Amino acid sequence: MKVLRINVRTKTVVAEEVPQNWQRLGGRGLIARILLDEVPPKCDPLGRYNKLIFANGFLSGYVLSSCDRISIGGKSPLTGGIKESNSGGTTGSQMARLGLKALILEDLPEEKGFGVIHISKQGVVFDDANSLVNLGTYETTLQLRSKYGKKAAMALIGPAGERQLFSACINNLDTDGRPSRVSGRGGLGAVMGSKGIKAIVFDGYGEKMDPPFDQVLFAETRKQFTQSLLNNAQVAVWRDYGTAANVAITNMLGCFPVNGFSAGRMENSNEISGEKMRELLLERPAPANPTHACMPGCVIRCSNVFGDDKGNEIVAPLEYETIGLMGGNLGIDSLDTIGKMNWYANDLGVDTIELGATIGVVAEAGLIKYGNVDQIFDCIQQIYQNTPLGRILGSGASLAGKILGVKRVPVVKGQAFAAYDPRGLKGTGITYATSPQGADHTAGFTMRAKVNHQDPIANVPLSRQTQINTAAVDSLGACLMVSAAFASSTSMLKNLLHSIHGWDVTENIQQEMGKEVILMEREFNRGAGFTEVDDRLPEWLSDEPLPPTNVVFDVTNSAIETIFNDI
Amino acid sequence: MKVLRINVRTKTVVAEEVPQNWQRLGGRGLIARILLDEVPPKCDPLGRYNKLIFANGFLSGYVLSSCDRISIGGKSPLTGGIKESNSGGTTGSQMARLGLKALILEDLPEEKGFGVIHISKQGVVFDDANSLVNLGTYETTLQLRSKYGKKAAMALIGPAGERQLFSACINNLDTDGRPSRVSGRGGLGAVMGSKGIKAIVFDGYGEKMDPPFDQVLFAETRKQFTQSLLNNAQVAVWRDYGTAANVAITNMLGCFPVNGFSAGRMENSNEISGEKMRELLLERPAPANPTHACMPGCVIRCSNVFGDDKGNEIVAPLEYETIGLMGGNLGIDSLDTIGKMNWYANDLGVDTIELGATIGVVAEAGLIKYGNVDQIFDCIQQIYQNTPLGRILGSGASLAGKILGVKRVPVVKGQAFAAYDPRGLKGTGITYATSPQGADHTAGFTMRAKVNHQDPIANVPLSRQTQINTAAVDSLGACLMVSAAFASSTSMLKNLLHSIHGWDVTENIQQEMGKEVILMEREFNRGAGFTEVDDRLPEWLSDEPLPPTNVVFDVTNSAIETIFNDI
Repeated sequence: MKVLRINVRTKTVVAEEVPQNWQRLGGRGLIARILLDEVPPKCDPLGRYNKLIFANGFLSGYVLSSCDRISIGGKSPLTGGIKESNSGGTTGSQMARLGLKALILEDLPEEKGFGVIHISKQGVVFDDANSLVNLGTYETTLQLRSKYGKKAAMALIGPAGERQLFSACINNLDTDGRPSRVSGRGGLGAVMGSKGIKAIVFDGYGEKMDPPFDQVLFAETRKQFTQSLLNNAQVAVWRDYGTAANVAITNMLGCFPVNGFSAGRMENSNEISGEKMRELLLERPAPANPTHACMPGCVIRCSNVFGDDKGNEIVAPLEYETIGLMGGNLGIDSLDTIGKMNWYANDLGVDTIELGATIGVVAEAGLIKYGNVDQIFDCIQQIYQNTPLGRILGSGASLAGKILGVKRVPVVKGQAFAAYDPRGLKGTGITYATSPQGADHTAGFTMRAKVNHQDPIANVPLSRQTQINTAAVDSLGACLMVSAAFASSTSMLKNLLHSIHGWDVTENIQQEMGKEVILMEREFNRGAGFTEVDDRLPEWLSDEPLPPTNVVFDVTNSAIETIFNDI
Repeated sequence: MKVLRINVRTKTVVAEEVPQNWQRLGGRGLIARILLDEVPPKCDPLGRYNKLIFANGFLSGYVLSSCDRISIGGKSPLTGGIKESNSGGTTGSQMARLGLKALILEDLPEEKGFGVIHISKQGVVFDDANSLVNLGTYETTLQLRSKYGKKAAMALIGPAGERQLFSACINNLDTDGRPSRVSGRGGLGAVMGSKGIKAIVFDGYGEKMDPPFDQVLFAETRKQFTQSLLNNAQVAVWRDYGTAANVAITNMLGCFPVNGFSAGRMENSNEISGEKMRELLLERPAPANPTHACMPGCVIRCSNVFGDDKGNEIVAPLEYETIGLMGGNLGIDSLDTIGKMNWYANDLGVDTIELGATIGVVAEAGLIKYGNVDQIFDCIQQIYQNTPLGRILGSGASLAGKILGVKRVPVVKGQAFAAYDPRGLKGTGITYATSPQGADHTAGFTMRAKVNHQDPIANVPLSRQTQINTAAVDSLGACLMVSAAFASSTSMLKNLLHSIHGWDVTENIQQEMGKEVILMEREFNRGAGFTEVDDRLPEWLSDEPLPPTNVVFDVTNSAIETIFNDI
């Protein structure tokens, strides 16, 4: 494997050996190391000292189910701290097949304008992309696929990324070529936009990986791995209902976001539930499909194609976080409407979580009304039109709250909560507060743990341990949903790493790896100016009871601030 | 002297004895102590835990020339850190005559709407002010003076403060009753707006102060103090040309802000110089007047009434910082135009420095052109109309830069530079970087020191010492311009404090007081999450040479970060 380093100003391309201290790091962990080694933590995230990094996990490229996620990272314009955002789709596996452990984009272009970087075994080519400027990601993808072929993986930005809006994401293609597998959080699309890159084509389809170190052990472990996924009851729920299964659970717990996080249970939440989605997609004609694989070889297939009753695709996939933030949070109780909003967000290239939270802030400011579909679609059009309000909407909930004078803003470190009210799901609230990534459910998701989710004490060690486990999973290129497989056998991860890379690691490897990642990330954030007081939720969550359970967030600051002291 | 504590939610009023540890603190220093004692540093600046504090200096109320400035403070919504902003006018002296060392506004109102607080020796009265909502400060002042009389002092906010815009200021009345003596920096008008207070009337005119502790020594020292001001050559320059005298000096040094801090010398700067202003005001009919006292008894009279050639008042006063930020920085070379912009800023209740810098950011984003007067006035109208762009404009340069995708933003800790480019005036640049107050020339102004202003080493101790001296001056209620008087005699300040308060202090009191203030302010900021990396200028100032001298900001981070280590 190599590290490919591209300077967007000089257009210099260098393929380097992997430095010694990067070799046993991957994905999220490798991004943290590269940022610590090469990026001044206090730099302007959209300035010339920041870097945009694509990093593969340890397991990517070997057609292990759900283990080809691509980690993308850099210093976040949204949080001002470290950022890794990983995504399914085809980027991870094709990048691995190109022999790339990491791709690092450096510097800023001297002139305005956008380019495409095409990477294949034959080398790196810079193409002009100015004809793609202002095009949404769907049209851009059509044009890129017509030029570069239908098999290549691609990572691209929409108008939001070009305009360096802080909620801009980077869209990766799914197995059918839709630009809908999104590295959503933290505004990395703006970093890509600052570097003048509209798309990167990873033309690695059909290229061969080096064989695993121990092919016999690998085949055996892979089989065991796949089987453990197929045997897992939760996996079956994901396959049937997708992540939208969470709608029923969060409503039961009272932590579903409703009308700007002002309630935790939605009256007609069944209209936007996983059960409702499955029912619709089973009765609607193709392409509607309640189950779909976002990565080649995935046996979980939690994704879906959300089609309408006339056989048109609305969006694919439609996921829980989007349903929460663009549905409940905005008072919208129609999956069709949410699906359309999702399509626009993908097309603009903005994070649906951040945009849903930000539209909530605009409603909170009184500029629109919760549940008013026309006004909400008008907000989305303002982003396309790049109006001042559109720029506010594309800049994320934190900035929008400051500009519009709204105090009830659901953010930590400038990044919006996912679709779990931290008052009703305190472990995940603690994760929001303390993750070096800013408010992010995937950084330490506690909802499936057997704990009283409103207990202010028991959820502290739970969040801590979940964050450590997750930091390791994010370094493997693995989907969070395969955590169950690693947990099913103490030797599984050890054997995978040995059989692929020849490494001799202990059965404690996941724990060790996760701690190392979090320590590196916290070191970067300290350099960027973060202190323990940044590890807090906004004060209104301690003051305002959440109906109908009327809980507040009552985890003490000292418990939160010391969570990683003894890591 | 008492501390008056008003809860805006319960409308409880309590007059308290001054606590022991507050007694030898005043103005800026007292604000720091109160914030440390009573306000959680991490609180939402516009939330219920922040407090708005009015604090008198040690010397206020005794008709000492230029020593009746009022310090207003709280946690700043603009910087997220400590904020003290002091102003001339009549508030300081009348508050002193009411026997108030400090006024503390607490909590948030339960309902929307605005009130007026009337304070006299008879007590505190809450009046409804909802008929004043959306009125500019000039019209508001007319109505308040017609209701409460023409002699009372007042501190009030305009529409910007009501709307909690982060560049909102608090306007105090000058000796003629204009709302133009402004506590401008840091968005304290938004804090007052959050507390639902449109105006505070300090009805202390004609009330008697307690006599000084040693009347003979006081009379003698006051005479010496006044004489030292009258003898000072610089004071004569201020009297004739006002602060606008700086236009010629900064242009000579190459540190005048031109077109968004892209050059340090303006071709036709003589059109907006102090000399030009004096020439105009001498030839124009009354009320035009090149010299005017902002506080009763001030012998410096650096203020002015800027009238047009038909005998109409445009604005009073017109000062250097406004000429720099709204003139040079926006490519405007007409004092009449700048004067009109200044009037609108006062009327809206926004800081002219912050607004000038923010309009520069809007120009940098390409939404308007430098020098286009119509577009600039349209920007100002957008703030009145409370449009999304108007809210961006009222939110300060830092947020505007983030929303509009501008990298060349002249701020530290979220607050805009004053009218000195830090590359050409490095001592003041170091002050911008390291002052706990955010970028603020008054916190440690080095331009009159005999030093090479481009020397990256010699300016570090200069800034440090100037910041310490200034922190003391700001605690006295004294104008920066009287520093020369304190420096003229080692016993002057000691004798003033002894003769007024009976305190026995050393001749080193200014140094001791200044250090104590800066240490307290840094302690509050640490609690709010600031670290040494917040003590830096934006990176573009190190990368981009400033024409015509082509200097960059090359003071090392380590020199800056350790500036107060041995304080």
